[in-house]
Amino acid sequence: MGEGKAVILTGRTGGGEEVELDPITNKIYLELNEPAPGNNQADVDRLLEGLREPAGTVIVPLELMRMVSGVLREGNWRVTATVGAQAPGVWSLVDLEAGDTTGAHYGLAVDIGTTTVVVYLVDTRTGRIMGTAADYNGQVALGDDILTRIYLAGTPEGLAQMQRAVVDTLNSLIERLTVEHKLAGRQISAAVIGANSTMVHLFLGLDPSRICMAPYIPVVNNPGIIPAGQPGLRINPLAPVYCLPSVGSYVGGDIIAGVLASGLHRSPELSLFVDIGTNGEIIMGNRDWLVGCAGAAGPALEGGVAQSGMRAEPGAVDSVRIKPGTGRVRYTTIGNAPPAGICGSGLIDCLAELFLAGIIDRAGHFKDGRTEFVVVPAAESATGKDIVITQVDINNLMRTKGAVNAALEYLLESVGCDYTEINRFYAAGAFGQYLHLESAIAIGLYPDLPRDKMVRLGNASGEGARLVLLANEKRREAEAIARNITYFELNASEVFMNKFVGSKFLPHTNLDYYPTVKAKMMARGLIEKE
Amino acid sequence: MGEGKAVILTGRTGGGEEVELDPITNKIYLELNEPAPGNNQADVDRLLEGLREPAGTVIVPLELMRMVSGVLREGNWRVTATVGAQAPGVWSLVDLEAGDTTGAHYGLAVDIGTTTVVVYLVDTRTGRIMGTAADYNGQVALGDDILTRIYLAGTPEGLAQMQRAVVDTLNSLIERLTVEHKLAGRQISAAVIGANSTMVHLFLGLDPSRICMAPYIPVVNNPGIIPAGQPGLRINPLAPVYCLPSVGSYVGGDIIAGVLASGLHRSPELSLFVDIGTNGEIIMGNRDWLVGCAGAAGPALEGGVAQSGMRAEPGAVDSVRIKPGTGRVRYTTIGNAPPAGICGSGLIDCLAELFLAGIIDRAGHFKDGRTEFVVVPAAESATGKDIVITQVDINNLMRTKGAVNAALEYLLESVGCDYTEINRFYAAGAFGQYLHLESAIAIGLYPDLPRDKMVRLGNASGEGARLVLLANEKRREAEAIARNITYFELNASEVFMNKFVGSKFLPHTNLDYYPTVKAKMMARGLIEKE
Repeated sequence: MGEGKAVILTGRTGGGEEVELDPITNKIYLELNEPAPGNNQADVDRLLEGLREPAGTVIVPLELMRMVSGVLREGNWRVTATVGAQAPGVWSLVDLEAGDTTGAHYGLAVDIGTTTVVVYLVDTRTGRIMGTAADYNGQVALGDDILTRIYLAGTPEGLAQMQRAVVDTLNSLIERLTVEHKLAGRQISAAVIGANSTMVHLFLGLDPSRICMAPYIPVVNNPGIIPAGQPGLRINPLAPVYCLPSVGSYVGGDIIAGVLASGLHRSPELSLFVDIGTNGEIIMGNRDWLVGCAGAAGPALEGGVAQSGMRAEPGAVDSVRIKPGTGRVRYTTIGNAPPAGICGSGLIDCLAELFLAGIIDRAGHFKDGRTEFVVVPAAESATGKDIVITQVDINNLMRTKGAVNAALEYLLESVGCDYTEINRFYAAGAFGQYLHLESAIAIGLYPDLPRDKMVRLGNASGEGARLVLLANEKRREAEAIARNITYFELNASEVFMNKFVGSKFLPHTNLDYYPTVKAKMMARGLIEKE
Repeated sequence: MGEGKAVILTGRTGGGEEVELDPITNKIYLELNEPAPGNNQADVDRLLEGLREPAGTVIVPLELMRMVSGVLREGNWRVTATVGAQAPGVWSLVDLEAGDTTGAHYGLAVDIGTTTVVVYLVDTRTGRIMGTAADYNGQVALGDDILTRIYLAGTPEGLAQMQRAVVDTLNSLIERLTVEHKLAGRQISAAVIGANSTMVHLFLGLDPSRICMAPYIPVVNNPGIIPAGQPGLRINPLAPVYCLPSVGSYVGGDIIAGVLASGLHRSPELSLFVDIGTNGEIIMGNRDWLVGCAGAAGPALEGGVAQSGMRAEPGAVDSVRIKPGTGRVRYTTIGNAPPAGICGSGLIDCLAELFLAGIIDRAGHFKDGRTEFVVVPAAESATGKDIVITQVDINNLMRTKGAVNAALEYLLESVGCDYTEINRFYAAGAFGQYLHLESAIAIGLYPDLPRDKMVRLGNASGEGARLVLLANEKRREAEAIARNITYFELNASEVFMNKFVGSKFLPHTNLDYYPTVKAKMMARGLIEKE
């Protein structure tokens, strides 16, 4: 996050894929014949006849049926119908407006993260993001981590409170966007949500408690299309709300959205998709097959776990360079504020730089036996205390990178491939966006591929949601991705556990998989030249 | 209503047609596999997979999604899903119960009349009517006739009040039935309603005001399937509620239900369907074509219009015989109560008997110039006043019969048929059930066909609703009937008006169309023997 970027991750990146616009809601302008003695069709039937050719079967909810006659006459039989996808081949009337309002057609792409929530206001006529609003997930105030929230949601009142918290966050972001763009909430006629399985459960008020208990059974993986009024979103209450489907408790709609945004499911070549946070998810495959796994990456990268760890907020050390030999540290902080702690990207930098400066060995141990390294001395820090990375912090980071490594190799082995066959690597999620690529490679968290094959997706979950908002075909693609991923249960696998135990070297037990890191190590005299 | 029958019409008659049971809601018992480490599908997805083969695409509303996990476990993965028709090929989950509850599956067939409301509790496993409850439509207290109600519903508050009135009536009838049969309201999972266009509008809270203003445009003819909670029926709130479709303002779902119950739309031979009340509706046709018309029959048959008129309530004179020569009257009253007035069937009897006794001439005029005929002298009456039929009453009845005659001939002429080609005659509705057939024929209200070709359908609207409840195919048939009826607008037709003006003879200008009446007239010396 080096150069004073926004604190909350909102950047739109995406695979830059072109989509043919066929949004989840469609606005259709109709010029209907006025009733006359020889033409006395009922109003709703007349409207449905007008919609038959452009839309097909359309269900009219009772609350709209009550409006139809008035709007038809107000618009002098020129009206705009908004229809939303409901089921295969079936649409539902979402709104009816007098005159031609097809010029104003808005939807939301939403990323509900455990920590932050991002809402993109999208012009569905062009696909363009008109505005972005982000904030912490209101649930954070109730429970910092996801397990606490699942626990708190164990009672009906707790669940209702948790549901309200995230809906309140969403509604305040929606209000911010509608005020800014001078829209009425009702003008927003669809929302597509990328979120992990627990976040989807809490958003919909579904009991998440079995997600974290063997055999890890969510209430639902694919909730389908739900009217916005039901969870309480303050947009058109009949607007279709679609949550991207999960594969299971640990590969959620956020990952499916990311894979969709990456396009790896459409490529003939082998690609790898990695999203590392509290949990790490890896999807590998091509247009013919998809495999995936997920596991607790360990909370090493989260604020509050490392001794000097903090969230990616102003004052967090987010990039670190350590001069080999002198051990002199250069760092930046978010917002250029006085340093108060280290966030995830800073911790990864620390580990990589300590390693490449020869201060820790390949097993992650301080060579001189010390127990911590001072990144920012007390005199410079906002807290008046040294900001440090400790041996314990390093051990946690090693476990995280080991888990990712082991999972990746396990997947590769399962499908009979190796590192060299990976044609493209997609880094998704917050860490994927802000981690320094060279540091992530240096510690072996990411594979050491030609850099032009490595793509940061940014908020891939939000981008996937945007694609699904814009094209019904993308919704079907997302469902096909979720259906087609063969999921490997890591916890149950001895092979994985062995790999995990054996993955404790920086960057990897086999240096040949990390040619650029090996070259740096040689250049710095950490290993003998060959 | 001679022999002290129930005052409100609830009898089930119907065409006695066999239907293959495929009800609008279906209960499906599922034995699902328990989740296990190798089988960790989400609960809702597991349920939907179980429903795929028996039902196909099923939408799960959010409120039920919240229950699924609990019910699956409560039933130890043995559950009964109730699914309701939603759109072509698409079902909606209506309920989920632990264990096998397919043995208890209930629905309602409802007839909402302008005056009375009848609710039939139907066992959808057998098609059997388990119980019937009827009462006056609560709207009667707000406005006696339909035009008053349309006027009162012209404001949003008036409309809401009118809607509440009929829903309250329905709910009290539903409660009566559920208490009697020891059911929870929630166990009733569907309702099908036969009602005229105005009643459907008021039930759904749709503005009826354009129904009675040229060019007579209802809000909707076919409202489709609406969840019971939306209009406020106290059954399962997700239960599909289906109102039989109307052809237009004046041929409502009650008529379509009646035609469906009669089966005339499936017969190769020409049939005639007549429902006479305040409005008269006539449908004619066979399996290849259908024509229909409707018009104000005149309120002559309603209580309160004729000088001594009253509703078919206890004390109403409901059958009358007049001895030719002496003019002595024999009569019966509903409930054998002291006579207080004359209801519709009594008035028709009076007219027929006065005619056949030679007291009025074929033009409906008292031969001796008097202005009224005493049916019950003051001494016998509950009111202490003579109960009479006046020349004005007779003129009104002549107009009613003339309008029906003219409409019938107009329809016959339009399709190039005549009386003799009518193979079957169906009399629907309250009057159809209780009118004395011979009297209705004698005055020319009904055609003079062989009596075995004349069928009284009783509450055909309720019976049609029951058929649609029991078979999805019947819903499609009803929609086809509504679609296929070619409607003739009588008000706009000069031909009709000429026929109406010329239809002022008892039983008909052409006596050859009324052979049995002609024979009676000859037998009584009213006309010369040929």
